[in-house]
Amino acid sequence: MERKDYLRNPVKHIKINSPLTVDQLMQQFKNSGSLGAGRLSAACDIYEKMLRDKECTVFLALSGAVVPAGMRTLIVDLIRKKLVDVIVTTGACMVHDAIEAVGGHHYRANWSVNDGELYKYHLFRIYDILVPEEDYVKLDFKLAEIYDSIAREYEGKSLASNEFSMEIGKRLTDEDSILRAAYEENVPIFIPAVRDSEFGFIHWLHAAQEKPKPVLLVDAFKDVPTICGICARSPKNGMIVIGGGVPRNTIQSSALASKKGLDYAIVVTLDRPETGGLSGSTLEETVSWGKMKGEGDRVMVIGEALMVFPFIVASVTERLGKEFKRAPFLQFQNQQTEG
Amino acid sequence: MERKDYLRNPVKHIKINSPLTVDQLMQQFKNSGSLGAGRLSAACDIYEKMLRDKECTVFLALSGAVVPAGMRTLIVDLIRKKLVDVIVTTGACMVHDAIEAVGGHHYRANWSVNDGELYKYHLFRIYDILVPEEDYVKLDFKLAEIYDSIAREYEGKSLASNEFSMEIGKRLTDEDSILRAAYEENVPIFIPAVRDSEFGFIHWLHAAQEKPKPVLLVDAFKDVPTICGICARSPKNGMIVIGGGVPRNTIQSSALASKKGLDYAIVVTLDRPETGGLSGSTLEETVSWGKMKGEGDRVMVIGEALMVFPFIVASVTERLGKEFKRAPFLQFQNQQTEG
Amino acid sequence: MERKDYLRNPVKHIKINSPLTVDQLMQQFKNSGSLGAGRLSAACDIYEKMLRDKECTVFLALSGAVVPAGMRTLIVDLIRKKLVDVIVTTGACMVHDAIEAVGGHHYRANWSVNDGELYKYHLFRIYDILVPEEDYVKLDFKLAEIYDSIAREYEGKSLASNEFSMEIGKRLTDEDSILRAAYEENVPIFIPAVRDSEFGFIHWLHAAQEKPKPVLLVDAFKDVPTICGICARSPKNGMIVIGGGVPRNTIQSSALASKKGLDYAIVVTLDRPETGGLSGSTLEETVSWGKMKGEGDRVMVIGEALMVFPFIVASVTERLGKEFKRAPFLQFQNQQTEG
Amino acid sequence: MERKDYLRNPVKHIKINSPLTVDQLMQQFKNSGSLGAGRLSAACDIYEKMLRDKECTVFLALSGAVVPAGMRTLIVDLIRKKLVDVIVTTGACMVHDAIEAVGGHHYRANWSVNDGELYKYHLFRIYDILVPEEDYVKLDFKLAEIYDSIAREYEGKSLASNEFSMEIGKRLTDEDSILRAAYEENVPIFIPAVRDSEFGFIHWLHAAQEKPKPVLLVDAFKDVPTICGICARSPKNGMIVIGGGVPRNTIQSSALASKKGLDYAIVVTLDRPETGGLSGSTLEETVSWGKMKGEGDRVMVIGEALMVFPFIVASVTERLGKEFKRAPFLQFQNQQTEG
Repeated sequence: MERKDYLRNPVKHIKINSPLTVDQLMQQFKNSGSLGAGRLSAACDIYEKMLRDKECTVFLALSGAVVPAGMRTLIVDLIRKKLVDVIVTTGACMVHDAIEAVGGHHYRANWSVNDGELYKYHLFRIYDILVPEEDYVKLDFKLAEIYDSIAREYEGKSLASNEFSMEIGKRLTDEDSILRAAYEENVPIFIPAVRDSEFGFIHWLHAAQEKPKPVLLVDAFKDVPTICGICARSPKNGMIVIGGGVPRNTIQSSALASKKGLDYAIVVTLDRPETGGLSGSTLEETVSWGKMKGEGDRVMVIGEALMVFPFIVASVTERLGKEFKRAPFLQFQNQQTEG
Repeated sequence: MERKDYLRNPVKHIKINSPLTVDQLMQQFKNSGSLGAGRLSAACDIYEKMLRDKECTVFLALSGAVVPAGMRTLIVDLIRKKLVDVIVTTGACMVHDAIEAVGGHHYRANWSVNDGELYKYHLFRIYDILVPEEDYVKLDFKLAEIYDSIAREYEGKSLASNEFSMEIGKRLTDEDSILRAAYEENVPIFIPAVRDSEFGFIHWLHAAQEKPKPVLLVDAFKDVPTICGICARSPKNGMIVIGGGVPRNTIQSSALASKKGLDYAIVVTLDRPETGGLSGSTLEETVSWGKMKGEGDRVMVIGEALMVFPFIVASVTERLGKEFKRAPFLQFQNQQTEG
Repeated sequence: MERKDYLRNPVKHIKINSPLTVDQLMQQFKNSGSLGAGRLSAACDIYEKMLRDKECTVFLALSGAVVPAGMRTLIVDLIRKKLVDVIVTTGACMVHDAIEAVGGHHYRANWSVNDGELYKYHLFRIYDILVPEEDYVKLDFKLAEIYDSIAREYEGKSLASNEFSMEIGKRLTDEDSILRAAYEENVPIFIPAVRDSEFGFIHWLHAAQEKPKPVLLVDAFKDVPTICGICARSPKNGMIVIGGGVPRNTIQSSALASKKGLDYAIVVTLDRPETGGLSGSTLEETVSWGKMKGEGDRVMVIGEALMVFPFIVASVTERLGKEFKRAPFLQFQNQQTEG
Repeated sequence: MERKDYLRNPVKHIKINSPLTVDQLMQQFKNSGSLGAGRLSAACDIYEKMLRDKECTVFLALSGAVVPAGMRTLIVDLIRKKLVDVIVTTGACMVHDAIEAVGGHHYRANWSVNDGELYKYHLFRIYDILVPEEDYVKLDFKLAEIYDSIAREYEGKSLASNEFSMEIGKRLTDEDSILRAAYEENVPIFIPAVRDSEFGFIHWLHAAQEKPKPVLLVDAFKDVPTICGICARSPKNGMIVIGGGVPRNTIQSSALASKKGLDYAIVVTLDRPETGGLSGSTLEETVSWGKMKGEGDRVMVIGEALMVFPFIVASVTERLGKEFKRAPFLQFQNQQTEG
C-alpha cells in the first residue's frame, strides 16, 4: 500500500442535531468511522447486508442475560419479521424465556445489595436483576408436565436439542415467548448445552419419578447434522453473536464442518482475546480455521451486548423500512409435526 | 427492606418500532432498566437533571481519542449551547483539536496494519486512526508562534493551565475548534497535565531557541484554587467523565478540596475497578472520600466512551428540545482579557 | 462495625529477597493482603483449606485453552496426586488433550500473524498458538475407531457425558493425557456441552457411515443426577474455576440442585460482572441463589487463568509438602467397568 | 514464512515439582511460551536484558495504587539496588508514599463495604484498602512545612517536577520511603501531573496563607528537556509500565522527542486497546510513532500490575544472583544540591 492510500478517508466529525433517529446517528458514526462508533456502524452495515442478501441464512447466537435484560420482545419481533433464521442459545436463556411464559417475572434491582438477605428472601440475583424462587417453581411444575407430554409423544425416540426447544415452544401459549414465536415461525432453536440449565434439573425430577412412564430422551449429538446441513445448503451464512460461549462456538464450528465458512459475522462482546478463550477471540482468528471466509464481512463491537444490540436492530430496521419483506432462503418445518 | 420491596419493578421488554428517535429508544431502555441499557438510560436522566438544575455547574472530563474519534464538533456544540460549563482534559486531547485547527486531519485506518510500514511513511497510529507527521509539524510551527505571542503578552508572569488553553484558543481562528469555541463561550478548559503532550515538547523547542526572548511560563499549581473556587461557589456540581485519568481525578479532588462533594456524576469507561486505579474506580468509592455526596445521583456506564457518549447527548438534547436555553450559574470571563 | 475495626490490618509491604520460592512470595502477598496480590494469596489459602478438609470434594472447572497453553501435565499431576476429585470441562478442552494423546502438538506462534496465510497452510490459530489440521485429522480417525468400539460395547444403551469421557480415556494409551489419567485415577470428567466440539463433528461422521453398525449414543441429561449426587453425598464441596462458561455453571447449579451450596470457591477469570453473564458474575451473587453458602470461603482473582493457576498450584503444593497424602472423601469407579 | 517455520516450537507443558522458586516456575512458563504465561516469562527475559545491557537506562512508570497495595518496599529495593534508573509517576503515588513516610498507614479492608459509613468515619477507600483522614492531615501539616522550606531555598526560582520530588525526598527521613530512597540514590522521579494530587491542594493552602512569604513555584514544562536529555544521552532506553496514564505517555513521548525510540518495553495492564486511549494501546502502535524501535524487545502482560510485577522482580533478581552489581549508564546528581 502506498502512503497516499492510507490518507483517503479523513474522520468526519459527528454532528448531533436533535432529534435524530437512531439510524441518523448511526450514519454519523459511519462518517467518523473509527473506534467504537466505527465498529458499531459497521455492524449495522453488515447486518443490513445479510438481510438484503437473498442467499444468506442469518444465525443468531444468544447467551447471557438476554431475557432478564429486557430483550425478549426484541428477539420475538426479529423472529416474527424473519430477520433471523436460526437461533443458537444456552439453556439458561430459554429457561428465562419460559419463566416469563408461565407468568413469572424478572425484577430490576441494584448490584450492590445484600446477597445474604436475598438468599433468605428466596430471590435469585443476576447482577442487578432478581428472579423470585416461586417463579422457578412455577416453571418446574409446568415443564415437568411438558416433559411428560413430549415423552409420551416420542416414546422410544430421542430428540435433538432443536426438536426439544420446538416441542417446548409448541406447548407454551404465551405469544410473547421466544420459544413459542420460534415454533410458530419455523425458526429452529438449537441449545447445544441444554443440560446445563434448569432444563437439566427438571429432567432429573421428571426421570426420577417412581411410577413407570416414558422418559424424555435428548440425544446430545443429534442436532449436529441438522445445523451443519443448514450451513451446507445455504449459499451464504451470516452470524450475529450476543455474548459468546457455546452458541458462538457451535455456529462457527458448523460453518467449518460444513466446509462453507461464514460470509458475514458480527460479534458484540466485552470478552478479551488474550486469554485464548473462544468468546473473546478475534474474527481474524476464525479465518485461519476456515470458520469464516477471509473475504467475509466481519466486525467485533466491544461493548455490553445487551446495550449495543438494540441500537443495531433499531438502525437496521429503520433502513429496511416498513415495506421490507424477507423470506428465509431455507424453509424449516417446525409446524409440520403438528399436522 | 422487605421482600415485596424488591419486587416492585418488573423488567419491561424493549420494543423497537422503527424508526425510533434516539430518545425513544432510550425510554425503552429506561423501562427495561437493568444492565447496560439501564445504566445508559440512567446516565441520560442524570445529565438531563444536571442541565435542568439551575444551580449546577457541569464539568466534562475528556481523555483518550476524543477528537480523532470524530467527537470534536459534538464537544464544540455542547460548549456553544452551554451544555457544559467547565472542561478538564489532557494535553493530548487539545493537541488533537489544535492539529485540526491548523488544517491537519485524522484518517480512518485499520487496527491490524503494519506499524513498521507506518513508521516508514511517517504516519502515527491511534488504534484504527492515523495522523500524518506533517500535520504535527504544521502544529509545531503554529504553536511556536503562539507561544512567542503569549510569552510577550505575559512577560514576567506565569499562567495557569486554564489561562494557557484560553490564550491558545484566542489565537486560533478555526470556529470548529474546541479551544476556540471554549474561548469564545467563556468555558474554562483545565489541562492539569498539559506538559505531558506535544504542548510540552513544543515548549522545549520554544524555550531552547537561541536569541533572547520572553519564555512562556506555566505554573503547575496555579489552576488549583481556580477550579476549587468554581466548585465552592457553585451550589451544585455535576461531572461527566469520558474515559478517566487525570481529568476525572482533578474534578473529583476539586469537589473534595472545596468541601462540596459532587451532586451528580456520570462515568463512561471500560476500565475496571479491581486494580485500585482511579480510572476504573466505582462512584461508590468516591462517596467514602466525600468527593461525591452519598445521596448524589450517579452511574457508571461500562462501554467505549466514544461510542456511548453521542447516544447520551442525542437523547438528552432531544428531551430538552430546540427551545431550551441554559445559562451557567457561574459566569467566567475568558474574553475579558481581550477588552 | 466500629471505626477502629476497620483499622486493624495495616498493609505490610512486600519484600523480595531472591531467591524466593513461589510460596514464600505468596506469603508476602498475604501480608500485603489487598488488590490482586491479596486475592491471589486468598485463593491459595482456600485451595489449601479445601485439600486439608477431609470432607470436601474438589471440583475443577476447565474452559478455554488449558491444554494449548501448556497446562496439560499440570492437570494430569493434580489428578494423579488426588488434588482434584471431579473435573467439569468443555468438549474443546478434552479434544485438545486427545489431539496430543494421538501424537499431535500445539505450536507457539504470534497473535499478530496473517490469518489468510495460516488458512492456506491449514494451520488453526488459538490466539498465539497453532494446531495443524493434520493433527485434527489424526484425531478424527482415532476417535472414529474409538466411537465404534464404545458403540459396540454399549449397544442399545446411552452414555452420560462422564461415561463418554471415561470410555475415551480407557481407549487412549498416553499416560500424559488428562482423559487417560482421569480414567486411571477414577476422577470423573463431566462434559455437559460435549456436542459443541470436534467430538460432535466426529460423531456426525461416525453416525453417517453407510454400512449398518451400532451408533454411539450420548444422553444429554444422563449426567445430571450423577454430578448432583456427588454434591449431595459429599459433606462439603469446593470449586476452582479456570475461565467460566458451562463448566462453572454446571458445578454451581449442581451445588444448588443438590441443596448443598458450595463451601469453598475460587474463580480465576478476566470476565466482568456488568454484562449479567455467568462467567464474570461475582461469587456474592451466587450466595443469593444458594449455589454458594453465605459463610463459604470464596475469592475471585482477576487475571488470565492460564497464567495465574500455576502460581496457585505451586504455592499450595509447596505448603502441603512431599509427604502430604490425600484421599477423596467419595470413591468413584471409573475402572469398575473394566472388571 | 514457510509452513514448517510455523511449526518449530511445540508448546512444552508446565511441570510443577514443588517447591519451585519463582524463577524455576518462570522457566516452565518460558517452555510453554504462549498466552499469559508466555507473555509473563517474556517480560522477565526483557527486564533481565535491560539490566544486563550496560548501555540501557531503565525507566519505571508507576501509576495506580502501588504503595497502598504493598509495593513500597519493593520499589525502594529496586532503587537502592540500581535496578531502575528513572521513575515517572503520578502525584497520587508519591502522596501515598509520603503518607507512610510521616507515619500514616494503609489498611486492608473489603471492596463491598458501606461507603456511607466510611464517609462518616472519615476513612477513604481505594478499592479494598482504607486510609484514615487523619493520615492525610498529618501529611498536610508536614508538607506545608516542607513547601515553606523549599520555597525559602528556591526563592525567585521555579522547580521542575523532578526537582520538586527530590526536594521532598531530601526533607523526609523515612528510609523506607520511595521519595527518600530516590533522593539518596540519585534516581530522578518525574511527576508530570504533580498538580493532580494532594500535592496540589496543599500548595493551595501553602500559597493562600496570609503573611507574606516565599511561595513554592513549580514550572509545568521545566522537566521536559531533562527527561528528553536522559533519553538522548543514553545509548539505549527501556521502559517498564505499571498501569498506564501520564507516566507511560511521558516516557514514550520523551523517547520520541529525543529521536531515540525505546529499545525495550514491558507494559503490565488490564486496560484494553480498543478505546484508542494511551493506557491500553499496544506496543506495536508505539512503533508507528517512533516511540519504540521496530526491532525493540517488547511485551504487554494482561494482568493486574500489582499482582504481576512482584513475580517479574522475584524472577529477574533470582536470575541475576546476589553478586550482580549494576551501575546506571548515566549518573544523576540529586545529592549535589546538598553540597
